[in-house]
Amino acid sequence: MGGFTWPGDHRAALALTFDVDAESAIVAVDPKYARRLTTMSHQAYGPRVGVPRILRMLERNGVTGSFFVPGLTADRYPGTVEAIVAAGHDLGHHGYSHVPYHDLSDDGRRADVERALASLERITGRRPEGCRAPWWELTDSTPALLAEYGFRWDSSMMDDDRPYLLDTGRGILAELPVHWMLDDWEQYAFLPEPNVGSVIESPAKVLDLWTGELDALAAEGGLMILTSHPFLSGRASRVATLEQVVEHARAAGGIWIAPLSEIAAHTRSVIPDTDARPVPSVYIEEGIYERR
Amino acid sequence: MGGFTWPGDHRAALALTFDVDAESAIVAVDPKYARRLTTMSHQAYGPRVGVPRILRMLERNGVTGSFFVPGLTADRYPGTVEAIVAAGHDLGHHGYSHVPYHDLSDDGRRADVERALASLERITGRRPEGCRAPWWELTDSTPALLAEYGFRWDSSMMDDDRPYLLDTGRGILAELPVHWMLDDWEQYAFLPEPNVGSVIESPAKVLDLWTGELDALAAEGGLMILTSHPFLSGRASRVATLEQVVEHARAAGGIWIAPLSEIAAHTRSVIPDTDARPVPSVYIEEGIYERR
Amino acid sequence: MGGFTWPGDHRAALALTFDVDAESAIVAVDPKYARRLTTMSHQAYGPRVGVPRILRMLERNGVTGSFFVPGLTADRYPGTVEAIVAAGHDLGHHGYSHVPYHDLSDDGRRADVERALASLERITGRRPEGCRAPWWELTDSTPALLAEYGFRWDSSMMDDDRPYLLDTGRGILAELPVHWMLDDWEQYAFLPEPNVGSVIESPAKVLDLWTGELDALAAEGGLMILTSHPFLSGRASRVATLEQVVEHARAAGGIWIAPLSEIAAHTRSVIPDTDARPVPSVYIEEGIYERR
Amino acid sequence: MGGFTWPGDHRAALALTFDVDAESAIVAVDPKYARRLTTMSHQAYGPRVGVPRILRMLERNGVTGSFFVPGLTADRYPGTVEAIVAAGHDLGHHGYSHVPYHDLSDDGRRADVERALASLERITGRRPEGCRAPWWELTDSTPALLAEYGFRWDSSMMDDDRPYLLDTGRGILAELPVHWMLDDWEQYAFLPEPNVGSVIESPAKVLDLWTGELDALAAEGGLMILTSHPFLSGRASRVATLEQVVEHARAAGGIWIAPLSEIAAHTRSVIPDTDARPVPSVYIEEGIYERR
Repeated sequence: MGGFTWPGDHRAALALTFDVDAESAIVAVDPKYARRLTTMSHQAYGPRVGVPRILRMLERNGVTGSFFVPGLTADRYPGTVEAIVAAGHDLGHHGYSHVPYHDLSDDGRRADVERALASLERITGRRPEGCRAPWWELTDSTPALLAEYGFRWDSSMMDDDRPYLLDTGRGILAELPVHWMLDDWEQYAFLPEPNVGSVIESPAKVLDLWTGELDALAAEGGLMILTSHPFLSGRASRVATLEQVVEHARAAGGIWIAPLSEIAAHTRSVIPDTDARPVPSVYIEEGIYERR
Repeated sequence: MGGFTWPGDHRAALALTFDVDAESAIVAVDPKYARRLTTMSHQAYGPRVGVPRILRMLERNGVTGSFFVPGLTADRYPGTVEAIVAAGHDLGHHGYSHVPYHDLSDDGRRADVERALASLERITGRRPEGCRAPWWELTDSTPALLAEYGFRWDSSMMDDDRPYLLDTGRGILAELPVHWMLDDWEQYAFLPEPNVGSVIESPAKVLDLWTGELDALAAEGGLMILTSHPFLSGRASRVATLEQVVEHARAAGGIWIAPLSEIAAHTRSVIPDTDARPVPSVYIEEGIYERR
Repeated sequence: MGGFTWPGDHRAALALTFDVDAESAIVAVDPKYARRLTTMSHQAYGPRVGVPRILRMLERNGVTGSFFVPGLTADRYPGTVEAIVAAGHDLGHHGYSHVPYHDLSDDGRRADVERALASLERITGRRPEGCRAPWWELTDSTPALLAEYGFRWDSSMMDDDRPYLLDTGRGILAELPVHWMLDDWEQYAFLPEPNVGSVIESPAKVLDLWTGELDALAAEGGLMILTSHPFLSGRASRVATLEQVVEHARAAGGIWIAPLSEIAAHTRSVIPDTDARPVPSVYIEEGIYERR
Repeated sequence: MGGFTWPGDHRAALALTFDVDAESAIVAVDPKYARRLTTMSHQAYGPRVGVPRILRMLERNGVTGSFFVPGLTADRYPGTVEAIVAAGHDLGHHGYSHVPYHDLSDDGRRADVERALASLERITGRRPEGCRAPWWELTDSTPALLAEYGFRWDSSMMDDDRPYLLDTGRGILAELPVHWMLDDWEQYAFLPEPNVGSVIESPAKVLDLWTGELDALAAEGGLMILTSHPFLSGRASRVATLEQVVEHARAAGGIWIAPLSEIAAHTRSVIPDTDARPVPSVYIEEGIYERR
């Protein structure tokens, strides 16, 4: 790959990140689900049982992670947010309602971002510097909005597997890219309704998928960002799988296991602002999608 | 985990539970399926072949299980209900029609519960003390209704992996939580119509999934409730898989294999009523789901 | 299981069956697909390449199989039908258009059955004695219709894993039951359109699934009917998998590998007509599916 | 199989092909996706990161591949096209907009083919001789159209696993057949929207699937055409999997690893034009699809 150097003797990097969606991810599809008690209990498992188990695992392994908490989750479980921050992990912005930005008007987007910032600030006394879009779905106008609200880094894009700088037009964000194959949702999510997935994979398969990518990325000096949802990966055997990924990385050697805030700071220190990439746009010629 | 002690020398618990849906689960989607002979025969395999094979396996291993039988199944297969009870297993309530509670009016829910109780009482002479919601879908008003009808325990929630007490407002239920990953439906269910699932997994994968979770939960002192449907897991190689889970638990040591009725009684004996949790409710602020 | 004895020293039975749907299975969904050349070529692979490769494998292993050929396939590929019959395999009825019986009126069903019989008789000079419903979907009135047309056995039901007799009201059919888990469609079928499945499994997984069930059924003296579609299982590595199932059965010992016609004849010889089961019907009480 | 001889000592053939769809495959579903930044970045990974990594792997292994590039991709990433051609790989036609031919009028199809040819010719100074239909979906009138535009070979049909000649009525095409099981899309594609797939498989499973088919096809002297999409298979561990397939073929021995252009030239040299097959057509009798 070339062109990116990691701090110290490290040849590659691994970040463990957690999107604490809880009820928000389902209620955002349709508020009627708020009255389905079992469905809501499936989501509540995340902050209630999953996050504490994940925090114990991270502490046991001396790993600092990055947690993205929607405002709705923060308001329902302020103790969860406090425990995350008290343990020294990153706390990132993840919208308030978990409605994707493309389903909101400009005003709606601003209201959602502000409401979320207010929730996190009320609980922790601090404003987060990092953000991740709900459903990982930025629109082409969102990066500028995020820069305007003072964010310093984002983790929602998929066009690279090493960090880069994104010139939003209103400021520069360090971008730390993610990918569906490094997300637990596609491996574990199932509900009868709404449709969030239909197959529940075994941890053995997931371990094979993730350590395979870790080995291949490490050989090239890349960055692997794993994303887990505590209502899914907080289950006992799945936390064990995450722990095995950490052990695999430690055994491989030379892999910097770090929170996104530190990777973002490092990125800003090694890439000059003049190398920031513009927000890509896709121009479609008139008429080429005319169907009969 | 802490806070929960199992009887005797046991460090964790395993329950084998069976939802004998048979035709009801499909006809509840649309009564037109009642005239599709092959589809109905797929469901009838449960009480006809699956339940007898499962009863033989449980007896061979000295395991007492918990069976939830919808009223419609009980009325069609009273001999199946009698065989379950005669072998000493739990018989639990699972609705009459298998229509989920959120699709019924208040009156419809009461009628469904009463019709189901009447069916089971007519066959066995007893009223069940335990229940499980059809499709595992409680609504926020259902726990109070179930307590009102005299149930002592329920097994439909997903927000923990140890038992707890639920204060319904009209009485306390021991809640014994389940999860989709410990259900055979997501692994085995397939019909061309209606859509009940699209992938048929091999027993080897399922064994890996379930023993992995058993090991991880046992290490923490949790409760693992396996749920099987005789029309799916009653197939020969799948009963063999269930038997391997039992053998795995026995080999691991210290795991209490018990029916839900006993786990519920134990739960009520170790948790004081004052520690019962209220029925959770999800409050949604006005306006946050307004889409453009 | 008890109650069923296999001929000679055999303790169980295995049948290899093939549904040669070709284009019919897709065009029956919507005739517009007839003009999609690639989609049609995907289906044509069955009679063009798959059937010859399967016939070579069966001959190499000395196995007689059972082929169900829709009339539309027979009319398009008469040479395929001739090759099947010349090699001594069963030729069974599988409808003309592959439209499921529940989508046809009474008259339409009769027309479809008659058109299919005429096609097969025109090519082979014989009327088939066995049948399998298109999509494996009998309706509650179809068994009587099939008996009326002189069929002696059927292979479309799923409520057992040993043969039985079905009293249709107009005559008795030997019923040789199938199941989705012993069908290649759920493991291999994929098209972008229409939706026939979304996951393509590896032969290794399928071998594990099928030999696991074979071992478990053989231990109980059951009948395992494998169903393959030449446009799917006719691919090179998948025929190799079928061959491995045969080798597995041979190595296990005591398993009668036979065509359905012989299994049907044996069934009729060991079960008295008085033990024939009536066609099951599902009675639904008025009002139980009323939704709010 | 017989009837097809490979050049020199080779007993079978393997081709590595790449459809560089990038944004086009998603925007063709609905142009609204052009404004979803993360979705577009998921697609852009193909030309940005995937193609360079694939080119390095091909060079490292001395393999010449075949790349099909939609006009829209070529216009957005001309440097990608230049790099492919500079490395000596095939450059094939893949439509302009990636809209399937059956969704375009006759005029629309011509406009799309011409626009795509113009893009590729503008960048490379040459007209491609080979083509592959967008979504692998030819209609029954497309082969004649492609022959008319001067194409010499195509790779979109599924009715064989050795090459053949197709008589389009306006000229002969060498046809090099593909199949869904030898495509990475079914194994790796996932997006929350539009629905492109729902399961993300591990490279280990994919390697098992592809090497199994390679071994079985090689034993019969067939042709295996692997199709990868750089936005999917360009990920680090997946390129490693492709490399393992190449190593597997080399270890097996006697397998000709060649670009489609050379396989097409060889096909034309060993099959006489008089053996060209007509474009198949499916005739449907009136009335057989009438539903009640």
